[in-house]
Order: sequence, then structure tokens, then C-alpha cells
Amino acid sequence: MNVPVVKFCSSCGAAVRLEIPAGDNRERHVCTQCETIHYHNPRIITGSLPVFEDKVLLCKRAIEPRLGFWTLPAGFLELGESVAAGAARETEEEAGAQVQMGELFCMFNLPHIGQVYMMYLAQLTAPQFAAHTEESLEVKLFCEEDIPWRELAFRTIWRTLHHYYADKKLGHFSLHVEDIGPM
Amino acid sequence: MNVPVVKFCSSCGAAVRLEIPAGDNRERHVCTQCETIHYHNPRIITGSLPVFEDKVLLCKRAIEPRLGFWTLPAGFLELGESVAAGAARETEEEAGAQVQMGELFCMFNLPHIGQVYMMYLAQLTAPQFAAHTEESLEVKLFCEEDIPWRELAFRTIWRTLHHYYADKKLGHFSLHVEDIGPM
Repeated sequence: MNVPVVKFCSSCGAAVRLEIPAGDNRERHVCTQCETIHYHNPRIITGSLPVFEDKVLLCKRAIEPRLGFWTLPAGFLELGESVAAGAARETEEEAGAQVQMGELFCMFNLPHIGQVYMMYLAQLTAPQFAAHTEESLEVKLFCEEDIPWRELAFRTIWRTLHHYYADKKLGHFSLHVEDIGPM
Repeated sequence: MNVPVVKFCSSCGAAVRLEIPAGDNRERHVCTQCETIHYHNPRIITGSLPVFEDKVLLCKRAIEPRLGFWTLPAGFLELGESVAAGAARETEEEAGAQVQMGELFCMFNLPHIGQVYMMYLAQLTAPQFAAHTEESLEVKLFCEEDIPWRELAFRTIWRTLHHYYADKKLGHFSLHVEDIGPM
């Protein structure tokens, strides 16, 4: 479940122990000195599916995990931003692209790794993006028939693209909520 | 932005300092000894709007913040659960009620406090729930005309109920995504 290794209190530096606090029903890391309770919660990964005309913008990852595989721009939501603002920031950072953010399109629960993915539909207003960025070896627009399905970085990306093309054929895009378990 | 106070490394106990790690673009708490980077991200609050016939189930809070005010069952998503499973757990814990979880209904960004609310529509299959719980002084079904609008605990709860009754009049429930800033 991706519970981080916590040995010391980040507030006072003393040792922590695992215990169930009063009024709670699960084990938490509790400081043996100052009694601060350290909670660990799932994190949101936010991203976009940028579209220009009949093409989709993908990024070839320049960083681990899955270096060299293709992805949609996405990353951890930061403190102080909305989910849509985080998706726009990731799209700028990974693809060098400004997009017009559309509707929330996919929400994937990955409880085994403590992540919730939120993917937005997005429109590129012009085919302007970086050829590469610090996070991407290559950034490229793909027609449906050229999507590198077997070289996609994550199942969440595969499923987002799958739903996109399925909904496109239906002529109607709707929110997809799914749980994705361990392989 | 609700960045927690971090003075010591939870991994090795040494002091941390704020710095922008290589390849990053914002300050993080980095350990001066083992160089672990400690990230802090927004948290998800998940909950439900439980409906039985023409009534909505509300809980009077037994705990701070907003003790004594009315709320929908909701709380922090825990590691290892999906957003919907967390909403069901909170509904059981706060209202003693089993629900049939429906569609995701509201997503509220509260970037100033690092929270993302996710509220689900839910159906009570019978009017069975606890009179009170450890977290609720009172649990009660309300008709629309009796909703205690001025005694609701949080703006997120007010807005969820507002959208519920507005959509009900339209005869169609759809996802509402909104940013809620500081008062």
C-alpha cells in the first residue's frame, strides 16, 4: 500500500512507533515524545490528453520510471493548485504546450500504490509544443493508427487513450471512473 | 497552502533544509544527511450524499472542527482504498449506514488548504442508520424544506446539497467541478 518508511518524527526528531490513536481505527506513526500523529494519504496524479485536430500529443519519457516509453503529460498534484491547474502545469512542463483544459475525463483508483489519477481532455489551440523537454526525450502528435499502444508507459495512459477513441467513435465523451489493481 | 512543519528527516532523524532539488522547480524539505526529499501533496476528502426516498441523511458533528454543525459523511481517503470505497467507509463510520454508491457528483478544489473533495451520490436501501456514532452527535434524514442551511459545517457540504436540489429539479444529475477559495 506504499506506506512510507517513517522512523523519526518530522516535527521533533524523536522516534515514532506504530499505534492506533484514540478515536481512530488504524495504525499510524505516532511520536514517542511529542505525540504528533503522522498521517499518510493517497496522492493525486493529474494530467491531460491534449488534442490537435485529429491528433493526440504524447511525450517519450526522459526519466524513470519507464524511461523511453510514451505517456500523456501527467504528474503529482502540488499543494496550492487545483487538479485542472496541475494538469495544465504538467502539460507545459512535459510537452512545452499550452492547452485549453476541457472536462475531467478519467479517474483511476490505484489503491495498491496509493494513487488516484485524474485525466482531463484538453485542446491545443495550435500545433505548438516543445520538440523535447527536461522530462521528455521527444514530444509528438499521433494519429490514431500510429499510437504506440505497446510502448505506452503506464496502464492508466493506455486506458485513457482507449476511452478517448471509444468515446470519439460514440460521438460523446463522458467521465470514466475505474479501479486498476496490481498487474 | 498548508505545508506541514517539517524540521527533521522521518527516515534518518537528521535536520532537513528547504531547497529546490535538481530537476525540480519548487522548494522541498531535503535531508541534510541522507538527502531524502520529503514531498507534501494535497489530500482527498471523500464522502457521500445518502438519499432515502425524498430525504437526505445528515450528521451533526461530534468532533472539531465545526462541532455541532451538520455535515454529509466525509473524511480523508486512506491508503489502500478507492475514492468510492473511502466514501462508503466514512458513511458507515459517521452515519452507521450502508449505502449503494452512485456516481461521482462533486469535485471541489480547495487549493488554499491543499484539499480536493470528492462527493458521491448514494442510495440508502432502507432507512437504517445509527442514531449517533463516535463522530456524530445525531444522524437524521431531512426533507428539502428542513435542511439546516445555516447550520451546515462546511461550504463544500452546502454546495453539494445546493447542486443536488438544483439537479433534482432539472431531472438530471451531472458532475460538478469547482474551485473554492478562502472565505
